[in-house]
Amino acid sequence: MPPPLSHLIIHDAVTRALREDLGDAGDITTHATIPADTIAKAVIAARKPGVIAGVDLGCATLLTTGPSTKVSVKQADGAHVKPGDIILSIEGPARAILSAERVALNFMGHLSGIATATAALVDAAQGTAAKVVCTRKTTPGLRALEKHAVRCGGGYNHRFGLYDAVMIKDNHIAASGGIAKALEKARKAVGHTVKIEIEIDRLDQLEEALTGGADIVLLDNMSIDDLTRAVKLNKGRAVLEASGNVTVETVRAIAQTGVDIISSGWITHSAPTLDLGMDFT
Amino acid sequence: MPPPLSHLIIHDAVTRALREDLGDAGDITTHATIPADTIAKAVIAARKPGVIAGVDLGCATLLTTGPSTKVSVKQADGAHVKPGDIILSIEGPARAILSAERVALNFMGHLSGIATATAALVDAAQGTAAKVVCTRKTTPGLRALEKHAVRCGGGYNHRFGLYDAVMIKDNHIAASGGIAKALEKARKAVGHTVKIEIEIDRLDQLEEALTGGADIVLLDNMSIDDLTRAVKLNKGRAVLEASGNVTVETVRAIAQTGVDIISSGWITHSAPTLDLGMDFT
Amino acid sequence: MPPPLSHLIIHDAVTRALREDLGDAGDITTHATIPADTIAKAVIAARKPGVIAGVDLGCATLLTTGPSTKVSVKQADGAHVKPGDIILSIEGPARAILSAERVALNFMGHLSGIATATAALVDAAQGTAAKVVCTRKTTPGLRALEKHAVRCGGGYNHRFGLYDAVMIKDNHIAASGGIAKALEKARKAVGHTVKIEIEIDRLDQLEEALTGGADIVLLDNMSIDDLTRAVKLNKGRAVLEASGNVTVETVRAIAQTGVDIISSGWITHSAPTLDLGMDFT
Amino acid sequence: MPPPLSHLIIHDAVTRALREDLGDAGDITTHATIPADTIAKAVIAARKPGVIAGVDLGCATLLTTGPSTKVSVKQADGAHVKPGDIILSIEGPARAILSAERVALNFMGHLSGIATATAALVDAAQGTAAKVVCTRKTTPGLRALEKHAVRCGGGYNHRFGLYDAVMIKDNHIAASGGIAKALEKARKAVGHTVKIEIEIDRLDQLEEALTGGADIVLLDNMSIDDLTRAVKLNKGRAVLEASGNVTVETVRAIAQTGVDIISSGWITHSAPTLDLGMDFT
Amino acid sequence: MPPPLSHLIIHDAVTRALREDLGDAGDITTHATIPADTIAKAVIAARKPGVIAGVDLGCATLLTTGPSTKVSVKQADGAHVKPGDIILSIEGPARAILSAERVALNFMGHLSGIATATAALVDAAQGTAAKVVCTRKTTPGLRALEKHAVRCGGGYNHRFGLYDAVMIKDNHIAASGGIAKALEKARKAVGHTVKIEIEIDRLDQLEEALTGGADIVLLDNMSIDDLTRAVKLNKGRAVLEASGNVTVETVRAIAQTGVDIISSGWITHSAPTLDLGMDFT
Amino acid sequence: MPPPLSHLIIHDAVTRALREDLGDAGDITTHATIPADTIAKAVIAARKPGVIAGVDLGCATLLTTGPSTKVSVKQADGAHVKPGDIILSIEGPARAILSAERVALNFMGHLSGIATATAALVDAAQGTAAKVVCTRKTTPGLRALEKHAVRCGGGYNHRFGLYDAVMIKDNHIAASGGIAKALEKARKAVGHTVKIEIEIDRLDQLEEALTGGADIVLLDNMSIDDLTRAVKLNKGRAVLEASGNVTVETVRAIAQTGVDIISSGWITHSAPTLDLGMDFT
Repeated sequence: MPPPLSHLIIHDAVTRALREDLGDAGDITTHATIPADTIAKAVIAARKPGVIAGVDLGCATLLTTGPSTKVSVKQADGAHVKPGDIILSIEGPARAILSAERVALNFMGHLSGIATATAALVDAAQGTAAKVVCTRKTTPGLRALEKHAVRCGGGYNHRFGLYDAVMIKDNHIAASGGIAKALEKARKAVGHTVKIEIEIDRLDQLEEALTGGADIVLLDNMSIDDLTRAVKLNKGRAVLEASGNVTVETVRAIAQTGVDIISSGWITHSAPTLDLGMDFT
Repeated sequence: MPPPLSHLIIHDAVTRALREDLGDAGDITTHATIPADTIAKAVIAARKPGVIAGVDLGCATLLTTGPSTKVSVKQADGAHVKPGDIILSIEGPARAILSAERVALNFMGHLSGIATATAALVDAAQGTAAKVVCTRKTTPGLRALEKHAVRCGGGYNHRFGLYDAVMIKDNHIAASGGIAKALEKARKAVGHTVKIEIEIDRLDQLEEALTGGADIVLLDNMSIDDLTRAVKLNKGRAVLEASGNVTVETVRAIAQTGVDIISSGWITHSAPTLDLGMDFT
Repeated sequence: MPPPLSHLIIHDAVTRALREDLGDAGDITTHATIPADTIAKAVIAARKPGVIAGVDLGCATLLTTGPSTKVSVKQADGAHVKPGDIILSIEGPARAILSAERVALNFMGHLSGIATATAALVDAAQGTAAKVVCTRKTTPGLRALEKHAVRCGGGYNHRFGLYDAVMIKDNHIAASGGIAKALEKARKAVGHTVKIEIEIDRLDQLEEALTGGADIVLLDNMSIDDLTRAVKLNKGRAVLEASGNVTVETVRAIAQTGVDIISSGWITHSAPTLDLGMDFT
Repeated sequence: MPPPLSHLIIHDAVTRALREDLGDAGDITTHATIPADTIAKAVIAARKPGVIAGVDLGCATLLTTGPSTKVSVKQADGAHVKPGDIILSIEGPARAILSAERVALNFMGHLSGIATATAALVDAAQGTAAKVVCTRKTTPGLRALEKHAVRCGGGYNHRFGLYDAVMIKDNHIAASGGIAKALEKARKAVGHTVKIEIEIDRLDQLEEALTGGADIVLLDNMSIDDLTRAVKLNKGRAVLEASGNVTVETVRAIAQTGVDIISSGWITHSAPTLDLGMDFT
Repeated sequence: MPPPLSHLIIHDAVTRALREDLGDAGDITTHATIPADTIAKAVIAARKPGVIAGVDLGCATLLTTGPSTKVSVKQADGAHVKPGDIILSIEGPARAILSAERVALNFMGHLSGIATATAALVDAAQGTAAKVVCTRKTTPGLRALEKHAVRCGGGYNHRFGLYDAVMIKDNHIAASGGIAKALEKARKAVGHTVKIEIEIDRLDQLEEALTGGADIVLLDNMSIDDLTRAVKLNKGRAVLEASGNVTVETVRAIAQTGVDIISSGWITHSAPTLDLGMDFT
Repeated sequence: MPPPLSHLIIHDAVTRALREDLGDAGDITTHATIPADTIAKAVIAARKPGVIAGVDLGCATLLTTGPSTKVSVKQADGAHVKPGDIILSIEGPARAILSAERVALNFMGHLSGIATATAALVDAAQGTAAKVVCTRKTTPGLRALEKHAVRCGGGYNHRFGLYDAVMIKDNHIAASGGIAKALEKARKAVGHTVKIEIEIDRLDQLEEALTGGADIVLLDNMSIDDLTRAVKLNKGRAVLEASGNVTVETVRAIAQTGVDIISSGWITHSAPTLDLGMDFT
């Protein structure tokens, strides 16, 4: 079970999203047509199969517009659902529920879409040792949430930002005068708790990266053959990560090369929403 | 040409995204490997065909990390690009450019993805009178940006939130005691600058909606035949909006029924990113 | 009954106002002179006749400084009160009540002042079909609150900002090349949920505005005679709004011309506070 | 000349107000009807006589929507103007000027209204030694601005909040067991840089307040006779402040009693806006 | 007992500190190793003797990560503790307690360090009439908290900022053309609730300061002899404040000169943390 | 040379600190006594020997109150200075400089104090391979700044928060059922870019920690003998970090045991300010 998001992050995200949707005038339709004392029961349910993420955000949205609303979680983050499965069961003021509906669904649909996409890759690589991880290709401002959704889908997280791991790419290598020098510079500059990863795109760069002491080597856009060779050359010295052209179709073959990590931007930057809906009962 | 985003919204979004990516420690890789005085030239270019949106966000990101960086816009918001087309041409401190790279690409890729998806629907409906519009199914916290991207793709915006137009749905109708009563309640409650839209899913509801004085009627998930009949029955009294099952394949037929507006959640909640990249030159 | 303000807006406004009044050192007088365990009873009551608005802000202020304070609402937003009428009945720690007193009164006095001014216009136009509405001439940063107060006084809201309706004024007309062209440009540019209003100050402009498809025509500073003629010429095609020189003395005659809407900046930008006070019991 | 407002306060207030007015969609009218490259000249001028305040806020508003706009200050804060006097002369993109117009006028009109009301009291008390000061009865969130406006009108500021001076009122006295004890408690509790004021409403309380070492005594709602007696009894020991029923009509007589300070809530909580307008030239 | 910090300030400080420590990924160690349902008991206890401050911040930190956690205060702000004394007794989810531990200790240790340093000066001056006060030499962003800690240690507060008292220093005197002129300018400029202090560093400046009407005279870096003479010359006219070279060793002699106030930057800018620790029981 | 702080962090910190010091009324002394057009020259210089940190914050503070002020950096972050050495040379409006003085000095004094304390430990360990690092025992809200100051003093940074490295302590071990199990749980839970550290306080725990695959082992409060033995047992398998009782006196002996890292809370939580002052010239 993935670690829960902190209350502070949830509060920030929900407040911001509700302010955005309610504006200064509020939910004018609901105020005009629904009496203040109408109590309603509703569910949020899946309309398509997928993996759930963002349940805490949905709950917090409903409780922010209606502090007296009761929300019962039927399917927690990480659950695999089929169409019709109820995720949240809700009872409270109809106005509060309706005013929260779209924001709650937007959070849960977006994050469950990421979890579902992640799970598709994870499932396809089932039985191999490779872990599926996300990248920094996330929606600006929502990284903590989207990284969490990847965990809900069975994936793991790459670094959260520019700050928590070194990732040396071609421009860094060029400016440093080569792989060995870039690694040396990085090792001298950063603290002892920080891992150092280096990206290469040719097999003949691997030995220099390993000798230079890289903790992780990112093998970018290499063929299955080259990945297989890289695993052999590595002999367990560094963590090997493969990236580039990772799809549900290709991921199994990549995983079977023996790489440790497969990273995908697609699961965060292009996952379609998971179709969820709210129904009144 | 779509109206530009306000500087205040851009500043907020960019600051938030850079803080998220830089954390407290900053871009540790770049600081370790790139000298402070290295000046670089780079471009942001398209790797796939599409429609551009978010150029102002990309520029603001680059200028926030490097106030002395020069950014030249080669393809503005709304431009149709092909692979290899340069969007931004950049010259400035290498550290500043590298620290901004991912955030700039995340903004521009995400928004150009939405513009590209929108343009696909708009193109498919070319020659009809129907306008393609987005919904409130947007990424929480990014609605202003995503609504802007829809405009860049040739689409139009539906209401921005719960606050700027009335949208009466099934629950509002039920709680009000019918379509006519719901419309009457809304008309009494809201100001004279606010339009009233009502959603129906059966043709036999249309006359009551029109008689009730709806400015806009949303025909949800109706067949092409029913949409065609609705247009005839309407006789230009209300704006007719079709929604449900809108895809690049279906949109033309929907548009040809004569509806005024076709709304799609997909263009904001499920558009894949447009593949853009930064190259140093 | 006017729709309530959202909790998020109330929380923001109250927090900001209390931080402003308490500063870093807090209520140094109360801390010095009132024991921490003193429980007090108090009321907020009207000292002058008027219409109440902002009760939720008063309550939230009292509960923010004293989470254990009990506040009972005796007169809700929209109530017409006479001197001596109790609005809030309060019991809680004396320190908390005293520290909140001025901010609570500032909110309630300011907003009730607006409600009272609005009600004066509404009452004067009683029996006519005209609605009294406010403008964008509000105190910067308090628009949502002041628009709400107008509703409490029996008025209605004009647009909330530059974003939720088109309002074409003389400069827009001049830059567009005339009324018809300005209306056409606007209709092409904005979404189908947005109403278009145009301001004219001469009767001979009306036909062009109506033919051009304006949803609303603002008749600025016209004589009673011209307003009467405008209503006849209009034949119900557009909503007609009168503005300029609207006072308690003039509003009835304006309303009797048959215009639909009378807008007043005075009710928000110049309404004197309603005199309220807190008394310990 | 009153001290200028800090840039940080101005920036905060202007950003907040523009975000409020522009919303997520921006100035849709101006974008629709005014070409991006139209340059305009305009002035902000007085339509009624009064005293100007808030010029820096007007300038900052114009520069925020149009960084390239040139604004020239013709009448600074504190200037007495007559109808037609130009306050700001403006040249820049028409779009930027129009989008800022209402917010700039709202700031300047509101604050100039306060300055004008203050000046009316100050003028009426001309030639006496009494200073006119404001209270904490300000619009929530705008206190720094409104206190500044009072200075522009020739008035002085009372304490800015609960934090920067002690003000002992009836409830504090009652809870402390009398005037002497309340003063003693306060003197023990607060730092040596903090003045202590006590409010009394009967002349027979004055001696105890003076003996108790009050720096300032607030004589609340006393008759002109009692104020005159209080001045005599005081013999210069404390600063004497009169409050209650202070109007343009009464202020001179109050000032002539010899009190040092006359405080008025009206100048901040009930001053009507000063009528200013923007004209394009 | 010092006045408590406002909830709003505590909430701000705690939220900011927890966001800083938790980042986007949260407490990854605790999530990995501690089951969600483990309940723990713990205490925060002193490891060194000292004076406690910041208990409310510690409690708020624990309650923010664990709303169901029970925290019992054993030693309140201002308490003198010896090693082993329990300050807070805690029971709640182990995850919540561990995630809050460091932030709670950082707040309490830092503020208790200031309280302890203050108490050391206060104790050394015991039996004299002099009060020990802090300065504006505080940690940026934490002034309200640190001023509170000084009160917990038995000290008093000097002004909280540039805004709540006048402090005329050498540059102000020079620019004004002398002590008398600077005092006159200040008295004319500021409100009647504001005290005026002037800093002198030579005894021969004292008479001019006193004649000029200074409320407080700061005697900077004067010898014990000069301080003694200053007290005599003053004859109770102004509050006399001594500063410069104030240490636990020197403070008693300074106090015995008869000055009213002794101000120390050291107690806020250089006090070492008080060693506190959390132990699970 | 340590990496510079991001502009966004500097802007946040400086804005917050200036708002704190200026309050709503601003620098009332300077406004009263210094003419608006007085231009001044000043320097910030060291009064005691030490290592400089926070120069960018000092500059940003001066530029925020005076955008036209010229600031020239004479001694950059990391410079070792002696009494009298000029750090910043300043020319600009006297009002702006005086209003910024204390905040600029507070930032630079506090951070230079940390840099100086760090340098003392670094110097004492000179010639050994051990690196001096800081901990999470920082002032709440200032961690990014204080971590930067440690780098200026020649030290390195430990993890920035709970989020960027695993640190398993006694409670985590106990809850997991032992060292091996805790390490296994952590390795399974966290991403491949995250290092895992474990704290032990007895030598006999070391082998289990090493076998369990810890990247770093924290040897807490061990004797010099035990540290020496730990280095031998380790045989380079993990990074060894020593903590506890680290002072200028003890650090060399600890470093000579061969440990890789020596961590000190003292350098951030208890470093006295470095005495800096501003002089007008």
